[in-house]
Amino acid sequence: MKTAKTKLTGNMLIAQSGGPTVVINQSLVGAVLEAKRHSEIKRIYGARHGIKGILSEDFLDLKKESAQTLHAIARTPSAALGSVRKKPTAEDCVKLFGILQKYAVRYFFYIGGNDSAETAFIINEEAKKVDYELRCFHIPKTIDNDLRENDHTPGYGSGAKFVACAFMGDNLDNRALPGVKINIVMGRHAGFLTAASALARIYPDDGPHLIYVPERAFDLERFAADVKAVYEKYGRCVVAASEGIVDKEHKSIAAAFIREVDSHGNAQLSGSGALGDLLAGYVKLRTDISRVRADTLGYLQRSFPGVVSQVDAREARAVGALAVKSAVKANADGSIAIRRKPGKKYEAYFELIPLISVAKETRPMPDAFINDEGNDVTQAFLDYARPLVGELPKIGRFKGTKATKPS
Amino acid sequence: MKTAKTKLTGNMLIAQSGGPTVVINQSLVGAVLEAKRHSEIKRIYGARHGIKGILSEDFLDLKKESAQTLHAIARTPSAALGSVRKKPTAEDCVKLFGILQKYAVRYFFYIGGNDSAETAFIINEEAKKVDYELRCFHIPKTIDNDLRENDHTPGYGSGAKFVACAFMGDNLDNRALPGVKINIVMGRHAGFLTAASALARIYPDDGPHLIYVPERAFDLERFAADVKAVYEKYGRCVVAASEGIVDKEHKSIAAAFIREVDSHGNAQLSGSGALGDLLAGYVKLRTDISRVRADTLGYLQRSFPGVVSQVDAREARAVGALAVKSAVKANADGSIAIRRKPGKKYEAYFELIPLISVAKETRPMPDAFINDEGNDVTQAFLDYARPLVGELPKIGRFKGTKATKPS
Repeated sequence: MKTAKTKLTGNMLIAQSGGPTVVINQSLVGAVLEAKRHSEIKRIYGARHGIKGILSEDFLDLKKESAQTLHAIARTPSAALGSVRKKPTAEDCVKLFGILQKYAVRYFFYIGGNDSAETAFIINEEAKKVDYELRCFHIPKTIDNDLRENDHTPGYGSGAKFVACAFMGDNLDNRALPGVKINIVMGRHAGFLTAASALARIYPDDGPHLIYVPERAFDLERFAADVKAVYEKYGRCVVAASEGIVDKEHKSIAAAFIREVDSHGNAQLSGSGALGDLLAGYVKLRTDISRVRADTLGYLQRSFPGVVSQVDAREARAVGALAVKSAVKANADGSIAIRRKPGKKYEAYFELIPLISVAKETRPMPDAFINDEGNDVTQAFLDYARPLVGELPKIGRFKGTKATKPS
Repeated sequence: MKTAKTKLTGNMLIAQSGGPTVVINQSLVGAVLEAKRHSEIKRIYGARHGIKGILSEDFLDLKKESAQTLHAIARTPSAALGSVRKKPTAEDCVKLFGILQKYAVRYFFYIGGNDSAETAFIINEEAKKVDYELRCFHIPKTIDNDLRENDHTPGYGSGAKFVACAFMGDNLDNRALPGVKINIVMGRHAGFLTAASALARIYPDDGPHLIYVPERAFDLERFAADVKAVYEKYGRCVVAASEGIVDKEHKSIAAAFIREVDSHGNAQLSGSGALGDLLAGYVKLRTDISRVRADTLGYLQRSFPGVVSQVDAREARAVGALAVKSAVKANADGSIAIRRKPGKKYEAYFELIPLISVAKETRPMPDAFINDEGNDVTQAFLDYARPLVGELPKIGRFKGTKATKPS
C-alpha cells in the first residue's frame, strides 16, 4: 500500500478472469460507475477476456456505454467483458507493461479469484520494477468462497442459493420417487459450495443426508456404508459430494478420469459427469439398492440467471466501487476483503488488504463447519451461510393424517 | 364418457404418478379444493406413491389438511403425495378394485403422463368388467409435453422455462470462456423440452447454436461437422441435445450405456452423465478444439423451485379442478386436454377427451417445428413455445465500442 502524494491522473483498465458468477458484473459496473465520478480517471478501458485482451489490445471504451446498459449488465450473469484462464508469463508481463504505458493506464482492476489476485500481484511487481506508477487492484470473486482474508466472497452467496434451491427440489424429487441420488457440486479445493446444500433442509428427514467436502479424506467403502445406513433409516438418500473430493493420499477422486490441466496447474473437474457416475456405480456395486442416480450440477451453479442472493449482489457491487475509490482516494494497491462483524445479526464491512494476502493459496472450510464423521456440516456452518444466501423458496408438506380404514 | 343419470355419491381417491414437475401439485390441490365444493364427494383419500399406495392402502385423509397447507403444497415442486413408476398387472387390478370397493371410492383421479393415462384406462376397464360404477380420470402432467390430443401439457411450460434460463446463463458462460459446451436435456421420445433451449437466444450469435431432438436421426459424424462449422463461425458453440436422441436405426444413442429398464419398458436415460461425456469425447476426437465440456441438466429440470411459468401453474391448477367438476357434474370419465385457440394472442381452452386417446403412444414434435437440417428449431416452434414459458430474465450486453488506439 502506498501513501498519497500527488493526484495520479490517467486511464483505467478493468478486466474479468476465471470462472464466471452471476454477480461478477455487479463488481464491474460498481467499478465503472465509481470511476466515472473521479476526474483523475480519464478513459475507462474494458479488456476483453482478461489478460488475453490486454495482450492483444482488445479494449472496449466503457465510457461509451449508457447508464441503462450498465444497469442491465449488472443484473446479467457471467463476465460481460469475457473471461480467461491464463497466468501471464514473464515475457507476457514485459509486453503487458508496454501496453499499459502505451494506453497511459494508471488504474488497473482485475476481478477474479486467487489466481487473478496472483496475476494482479505479478503485474504490480513488474510495474514497481520499472518504476511505473500504477494503482493495481484485485476485486474478489469466486463461487468457491475460498479466498483467504475474506469472510466470504462475491459470487458465493448466489452460487450457494442455486445449490440450496437445487437440493430443495431434488430432495422433494427423491422423496416422491425414492432411491439414492448423488449430486456433484463445484468447488475444487474448498467445500463451501457443497456445504450450502445443507441449507435445503427444512424437515428432519430432508436431504441432503450426506455431505462430502474436499477438506476430509473420502473413502469409497465408508461412503457406501454411509449411504446404506441412511437408506435403511429413510428408504432413500440424497448425497452432496464436491467435485474436489480427495482420498487419504490427497489424490482427487475425479482426476483419475480427467486429464486436462489449465495453465494455473488446475485439473479440469467440471463439465463432465464422470465422478457422479463413478459414485453411483459404486453404490450399486456395494449395496442392493436398485434406484441410484447421479447428476452433476455443472455450470448452472455459476451462471443461472434469476437465482441471485440480494446480499451477494449488493456486496459484489460494493467491492467494485470500493476498489476504485481506494485506488483514487487512498492512492493504494490491494484487494478489498469482506469481513463480518461478530454478533447474531449479519453485518459485513470491507477492508483494504495487500494483494499478496489473497494470492496463491486458497482457504479451506474451517474445521468447525464439518462434523466429526466428515459426512455433514455443523450448525456453525448453517449460521455462517444462511445470511449470505438470503430467502429461499417456501416448501409445503402435508400434515399427513392417515385415513381411517373402513370397518 | 357416460351420460348423467343419478348423482353418484361416494369417496374420492387421488394419486400422482411418473416423473415429478414443479406444478403437478397445482393439479392435486386444484382437484382437492374443487372436490371439497361437491356434496357428492365424501372423503378425499390421497394415495401415497400412486398405484403402490393404493395396493398397500397407504392413504392420507386430505380433508384433514388446512387451506394454508394446500396453498403451500400447490407452490411446492415434485409430487407431494409421492410418485411411482409402476403399471398394474392383471393381478394388481383385481386387488385394486377390492380396495376401491372397500373404501367406497367412486371418484378416482390419476395425475400423470401417457403411462398414467393407460393405468387409469386399465382401472376403468376393470371397473366396467365388474360393473362397479366409477368416475375415472386422468389429469395430464409431463415436462416432456408428449401427450396426444394436447396442445401442451402441465409441467412443460415450467420445465421449458428452466431449460431456457439454463441456456441463457450457459450461453453467457460460454461467451466469457469460449469453447464447445454440450447440454443434455430431458425428453425420452419428444424433443419439446430440448427445443425450448432456443428461447434462450436474444442476439444473433447466441447459443444454443445446434439443437438435436429425438425426432431426427442423430449421426455422430454430422454432429462433429456441425459443431466444427459453428466453432469456425463464432469461436464457440453451445449444443442442446436430447437424452432421447436416436441413430438412423432408431436405436438410442444413450441406451448403449444404460441397462436399466422400468416396468413400462422405458430405459432409464436420466441420472447419468454418460451421453454428454460421449458427445464431448467425440467432438474432441474429431476436431482440434481443446475446450469441450458437457453438462446433463438432470432432475433440476423437473423439480427446481421458484422457476415456474405462471401460465403453466394456472393451467395445471385448472385441469385438476376441471377433472373433478367433470366427474361430478357430467358424470364422465376421461382426461382433460389443453387446446389452443387459433390466432396471434395466446388463449387456451380445455376439453374432456376419452382416456384411451392419451394412453400408450406419445406425440412427437410436429415436423414444422424442426429445421430441414435437423439441427435446430423453426420460428413456428418459438411462436408455439414462448407464451407457455412466459417472461424470461432480462440480459444486458455491452454496445461494445472499441477503444481508439493511442496515436
